[in-house]
Amino acid sequence: MSQVTDSTRTGKRERLAGAAMRVLHEQGVEKTTLADIARAADVPVGNVYYYFKTKDQLIEAAIDAHGRQLESMISTLEQLPTPQERLKSLLHGWIEQRDLTARYGCPTGTLASELDKRDDGLDRAIAKVMGELLDWVERQFQAMGRDDARELAVALFAAYQGISLLTNTFRDPGLMAVEGRRLERWIDSLA
Amino acid sequence: MSQVTDSTRTGKRERLAGAAMRVLHEQGVEKTTLADIARAADVPVGNVYYYFKTKDQLIEAAIDAHGRQLESMISTLEQLPTPQERLKSLLHGWIEQRDLTARYGCPTGTLASELDKRDDGLDRAIAKVMGELLDWVERQFQAMGRDDARELAVALFAAYQGISLLTNTFRDPGLMAVEGRRLERWIDSLA
Repeated sequence: MSQVTDSTRTGKRERLAGAAMRVLHEQGVEKTTLADIARAADVPVGNVYYYFKTKDQLIEAAIDAHGRQLESMISTLEQLPTPQERLKSLLHGWIEQRDLTARYGCPTGTLASELDKRDDGLDRAIAKVMGELLDWVERQFQAMGRDDARELAVALFAAYQGISLLTNTFRDPGLMAVEGRRLERWIDSLA
Repeated sequence: MSQVTDSTRTGKRERLAGAAMRVLHEQGVEKTTLADIARAADVPVGNVYYYFKTKDQLIEAAIDAHGRQLESMISTLEQLPTPQERLKSLLHGWIEQRDLTARYGCPTGTLASELDKRDDGLDRAIAKVMGELLDWVERQFQAMGRDDARELAVALFAAYQGISLLTNTFRDPGLMAVEGRRLERWIDSLA
């Protein structure tokens, strides 16, 4: 019985964190209430306080969930034989999400931008998640034999964050598609 | 007398719009109150309502002030003889602001990102301002004889927006300096 209860609890906690990730992406931090997240997770709002006492704790759990999602994406990319293929596959994933990006921006980037204006220290948590992906991109450029791997990783990551912002601002998924193809040619040119 | 009064009024209105631009950059839209802006403009908070009835009207005036600032920057850049020099001077302006960017991000980009999550239509106003700078960058690449001027303008603008976000997220002005030098070499390579 206790095991069942524990797994139900873990399930609800994870469902809330996953829902928080989605709702924060769509509505932003400031406009989102615990009730919005409870509704999206299909958990009674009164139960939320059992798992998360404050909105900040739920934002932190959403950032953790986001980090795990990126780790799982990286594991999938690692299956590919060459660093170029891994980077281009990362790029394709970003391009595939372009309609969602046109509506809500990059989930990591918009959250980072919003948390940077707050004083709750959660900006450090999102920076850590972004830093892990950035380090992974750098390792791919290193594996391609580039001495300037860090600079290239920052450039690729910045290009994605920037085109996400423009795609969102101009509500134009086509911007991401065109820039994605340009970045793909750029990766090929570096090999 | 009436002229003096009008010019005093215009002065206060402009001072409020300018202060709104600065405070929104530092604190973000959601956390900023009319009282914060009144304080920064050194205008009694009771007077603000004479010029702006709602926070949205003040945000709109801040976006207009931002647009005028970009126009004045463009006029200065236009003095330079070649399109390459104009683009590199734009880039240098961005790099010079890197300490401020590390603290608060790009003023246009963070505002666009925040307004995109709101339903007040102000996202269209900021998109218009960004669109004007983007069009100007495109004209420079056209003057350099590039058929892919639009694509290059989007790439340069996205690179700046993205590196601003990373500079802000990692609180590291050095990121902007390194990426700025890379973009400068890139502009030279396109001429």
